[in-house]
Amino acid sequence: MTPVGRMPAAITIREVGPRDGLQNEDPIPTDAKVALINALSRTGVSRIETVSFVHPAAIPQMADADAVWSRIRREPSVRYSALVPNLRGAARALAAGFTEIEVVVSASDTHNRRNINRTTDESLAEISDIVASVHDGDGTLEVIISTAWGCPYEGDVPVERVIEVAKAAVDAGADSLTYGDTTGMATPVRVVELVERTRDTFGGLPLALHLHNTRGTGLANLYAALQLGVTNFDASVGGLGGCPYAPGATGNIATEEVVAMVEDMGIATGIDIEALLDAASFAQLAVGKELPSNVLRAGPRNRLTPLDAVSR
Amino acid sequence: MTPVGRMPAAITIREVGPRDGLQNEDPIPTDAKVALINALSRTGVSRIETVSFVHPAAIPQMADADAVWSRIRREPSVRYSALVPNLRGAARALAAGFTEIEVVVSASDTHNRRNINRTTDESLAEISDIVASVHDGDGTLEVIISTAWGCPYEGDVPVERVIEVAKAAVDAGADSLTYGDTTGMATPVRVVELVERTRDTFGGLPLALHLHNTRGTGLANLYAALQLGVTNFDASVGGLGGCPYAPGATGNIATEEVVAMVEDMGIATGIDIEALLDAASFAQLAVGKELPSNVLRAGPRNRLTPLDAVSR
Repeated sequence: MTPVGRMPAAITIREVGPRDGLQNEDPIPTDAKVALINALSRTGVSRIETVSFVHPAAIPQMADADAVWSRIRREPSVRYSALVPNLRGAARALAAGFTEIEVVVSASDTHNRRNINRTTDESLAEISDIVASVHDGDGTLEVIISTAWGCPYEGDVPVERVIEVAKAAVDAGADSLTYGDTTGMATPVRVVELVERTRDTFGGLPLALHLHNTRGTGLANLYAALQLGVTNFDASVGGLGGCPYAPGATGNIATEEVVAMVEDMGIATGIDIEALLDAASFAQLAVGKELPSNVLRAGPRNRLTPLDAVSR
Repeated sequence: MTPVGRMPAAITIREVGPRDGLQNEDPIPTDAKVALINALSRTGVSRIETVSFVHPAAIPQMADADAVWSRIRREPSVRYSALVPNLRGAARALAAGFTEIEVVVSASDTHNRRNINRTTDESLAEISDIVASVHDGDGTLEVIISTAWGCPYEGDVPVERVIEVAKAAVDAGADSLTYGDTTGMATPVRVVELVERTRDTFGGLPLALHLHNTRGTGLANLYAALQLGVTNFDASVGGLGGCPYAPGATGNIATEEVVAMVEDMGIATGIDIEALLDAASFAQLAVGKELPSNVLRAGPRNRLTPLDAVSR
């Protein structure tokens, strides 16, 4: 094996800006969400995490989920998904016509409790009911395991604990898993360790990674996963979303940073980076503040500096 | 080989904030430079690029190089280096007592011309004289080849061209090489390609990488180099310096991001990250603006969120 590893020829990016991103920003108008999702739908991206069906008092940013979903122009080439917090949310998502549904459970008890006021075990106990309901509706259920590489309250989360939570989810009938690096505590060797342990345990079960750039390691972690042949990644346009645990800190890896890096290495994403950068510029205007994406600021590597530009 | 590769047990970081960083920021007082270098000298870092001996009209940020160098408290454990633009600069550096001297030449003719109004060949032609002068003064000369992974004006720079420039430098007597990713155009496979080609050509010649994070790939590139066993890296405290080609864009990789990532993977740097973060906070105050370091914003991964913190 060369040091580059056996990298895939293509990856699938799930764009999570409209849901995970906007849920962690101040609320923006429904019109802006619709326009953003429509712009993203036309970039060539394969998947969009569109809305979450949560209680509007808990997360006002997603109070207009039904309106957003009914108003967007759905591209046939795009798979749209919804996040739900529980069985009731799953019923709403199915009623709205979603067939790809996600539920989050934290590998850290403290984090799960702080997020949804239940222990991890209590959350896991509900998953088989959610699976049954989603499968009844001809949908698939993905379980996203957050704090998979560490918890902002507890610190390190042992790999054994993450595998244990994953097992419970798989035993409950989850169709796929995503590991979330909630506060950017992963580093490449931790990514390798967890991915290898997961494959040892679950074989070819579909696995995606939801990486954050909170400590700058987002693309290094992604590269480590590519070397293992991982092909499913979440990313957020412009890096929309931030980190709720550290004011001003970065959250999700920026979709255009991922696209720029992997396409340069010969890995196809299907995404037109110029269209994506337009969507990122729009997202930045919509939230009214500078987003953390480095490629949004600097442009892709083939965007040259004019010779008459002032430099020093 | 595992996908992690044969990573080194330790790396040597050259802290370039005081020179490369401050040269690309608005000028700060001599006192602040001295205090910053003194703080960095006490972090455990092995090497500091301290000043450059350039014409004060060209680079006013370095006009006080002699004063800074004479006033800092030199730690015996730290190797201090100076950058010079030409033979005259080398003479000044040697007269000031530096023994580790660096000179930059760009692999891109257009970039070299824009930087110092000479072609790359004209710059290379002077290197043997600089080497002779530095060796006469019992010093070592490192040649830093900038735009090694791409030029902001010309775009891609072929690997063959970089190797050709490196050969000229080595033939002229350079003691070591550094490749500079001037505007963050490198991606991991490009790093692997150039490092492998360099080893094929020059064997064990000391090689360092000067990586930028302008497009978010800084730590991914560093991880790719670690997997090849590269052990010498430049980094800038707080990510000080920016990118002169794209307003607001990131330049150097942040030293604390490098330290946080590699130490978590069991690779020693000798650096006390808390002392480094204090130096980064000071640097941020000194330049009067937010620096791009993610670890400066979010803290290292072992800094937990208090349970009574507000989160959403």
